[in-house]
Amino acid sequence: MTKFKLLTLSFAITGACVAWAAANEPIQPVKPPANINLGMVELGKKLYFDPRLSKSGFISCNSCHNLSMGGTDNIATSIGDQWQQGPINAPTVLNSSLNVAQFWDGRAADLKAQAGGPIANPGEMAFTHTLALGVLESIPAYVRDFTQVFGKDKVDIEQVTLAIAEFEKTLVTPNSRFDQWLLGKKDALTGDELAGYKLFKDSGCIACHNGEAVGGNSFQKMGIVSAYKANSPAEGRSAVTGKDADRFNFKVPTLRNVELTYPYFHDGAANTLGEAVDTMGRLQLGKTFTKDENAKVVAFLKTLTGDQPSFMMPILPPSSDATPRPKPFAKK
Amino acid sequence: MTKFKLLTLSFAITGACVAWAAANEPIQPVKPPANINLGMVELGKKLYFDPRLSKSGFISCNSCHNLSMGGTDNIATSIGDQWQQGPINAPTVLNSSLNVAQFWDGRAADLKAQAGGPIANPGEMAFTHTLALGVLESIPAYVRDFTQVFGKDKVDIEQVTLAIAEFEKTLVTPNSRFDQWLLGKKDALTGDELAGYKLFKDSGCIACHNGEAVGGNSFQKMGIVSAYKANSPAEGRSAVTGKDADRFNFKVPTLRNVELTYPYFHDGAANTLGEAVDTMGRLQLGKTFTKDENAKVVAFLKTLTGDQPSFMMPILPPSSDATPRPKPFAKK
Repeated sequence: MTKFKLLTLSFAITGACVAWAAANEPIQPVKPPANINLGMVELGKKLYFDPRLSKSGFISCNSCHNLSMGGTDNIATSIGDQWQQGPINAPTVLNSSLNVAQFWDGRAADLKAQAGGPIANPGEMAFTHTLALGVLESIPAYVRDFTQVFGKDKVDIEQVTLAIAEFEKTLVTPNSRFDQWLLGKKDALTGDELAGYKLFKDSGCIACHNGEAVGGNSFQKMGIVSAYKANSPAEGRSAVTGKDADRFNFKVPTLRNVELTYPYFHDGAANTLGEAVDTMGRLQLGKTFTKDENAKVVAFLKTLTGDQPSFMMPILPPSSDATPRPKPFAKK
Repeated sequence: MTKFKLLTLSFAITGACVAWAAANEPIQPVKPPANINLGMVELGKKLYFDPRLSKSGFISCNSCHNLSMGGTDNIATSIGDQWQQGPINAPTVLNSSLNVAQFWDGRAADLKAQAGGPIANPGEMAFTHTLALGVLESIPAYVRDFTQVFGKDKVDIEQVTLAIAEFEKTLVTPNSRFDQWLLGKKDALTGDELAGYKLFKDSGCIACHNGEAVGGNSFQKMGIVSAYKANSPAEGRSAVTGKDADRFNFKVPTLRNVELTYPYFHDGAANTLGEAVDTMGRLQLGKTFTKDENAKVVAFLKTLTGDQPSFMMPILPPSSDATPRPKPFAKK
């Protein structure tokens, strides 16, 4: 009994320390997802991987937000229907449930609102919601899934985007070495990595990159101290608000798994983390990191890679004779 | 002891019946893969899913031989680099280790010889073996994988194609309802399905579609009784042998999982199984199946869908600063 009480006390103290450690840092550990509807997740996973939601039958959500590659396509700007060049870098889907809003300009309030966008975007999946629903309703196994999950007699786009968003809520990446350190494992980081974290805080990076996602929770101007010469026509938040003051304001990207989500910035112009840190320092903070400082910040950033989503490759239900066949080479 | 002996005897009799049942049918059950190098499979799986083996960084083996969709892209002819239209229907990768040779015209002797083709084909992944090796050698985690699996100090294309082929050897689909029936589960098929199998045999389909893969083991002319009007310029086996007699000879496709591998034929012109059965009957056998017969053959064919490959979605190792970045929109 005494031993048991001591153990309990010891756990209580450890717990308190952990809570203290995390609470006193401007970055919080990623929490595993809660309140998840597993039936909806399984349906959403299939939809996420299903290229039949595109006009060509070739492009799925996973094409540009590839879960084998940090939830991105690792290309400066994405490839859309007919090999169209996208206007902006595909942001990672990992931890996107933590974002204040979706898309670089925040034009979608949440994951559900985002999910319908690319399907109907002529430069991306180039389909329409009506045509996508027609495909889904022609596939008996999908109809059964939707009926089971939503209990309605008709598939609508609301259900499609809800299911995709529910799957995306599971795509968080806890257990990074940095989070282990936050949670009390003091040897989880090397001296250089800790020094990089200190530089990250002391130099001001932390002003925008903070919280659970180390970003994603505010809009900021790209090019505060010096102007950014972008490879992209995107002007960010002003496209949503109509305010000239919001030009070149973009959602601060999460730095979780940033080692995997190259190339960087809304135009994908920075190929390496070292380059991104250098540009951010000069343009946003008016600070030129030395080579040694830069390497330490990069070493810290690489500790933010968490456990990647781990799941069985989904098997999609086959089309029926009634399913419209994609015509990827048809001109309009 | 007596009970144990009786059980043993009973198993022995069942075993004998099973062997008998399978041995007397022209189709044999799919066997699980043997002699598999698991380290090589894990490496090959990553390579199979890695779009960095393409010029664009967008197309992987899985793009056109999608393991969520019966190992095909379900498009008449595939989409290649810069949205080029492929000349032929992508055959399923499922059970392809059972094929007498690879590609519709059999120009590759085996899976290893096949795997290098699409990477360097200007109309498909549009890369070169040298450039692909440069990418792999710049990624430390890949170099470690290759060293561990092959024990050499340099990555070469031989290793890449061997690993992909080893993964593909695992992509067999045992346990279809038809195989359960072959193995003695007499209620695995309905009356209509059995009637369809009898029609399949009695009408002559079985002459070409037989063996473990229900096809894949011979080359045959497309259009024996009447000529086939193809949507494709492909002339098949003659491109390999140079013999005029081999024009329009193609490898007989496997019918395993044929429910999932639509559209059908080397030009992908048949959208449904019913259409494919009708065309095959008329052109290859001079037989017009009635609507009822056609439905029964189709019902039989759908019993050939086996257990789909089941594995965790692979997580790819990130590029390093030294990895050349893809330029999907660059003109040559």
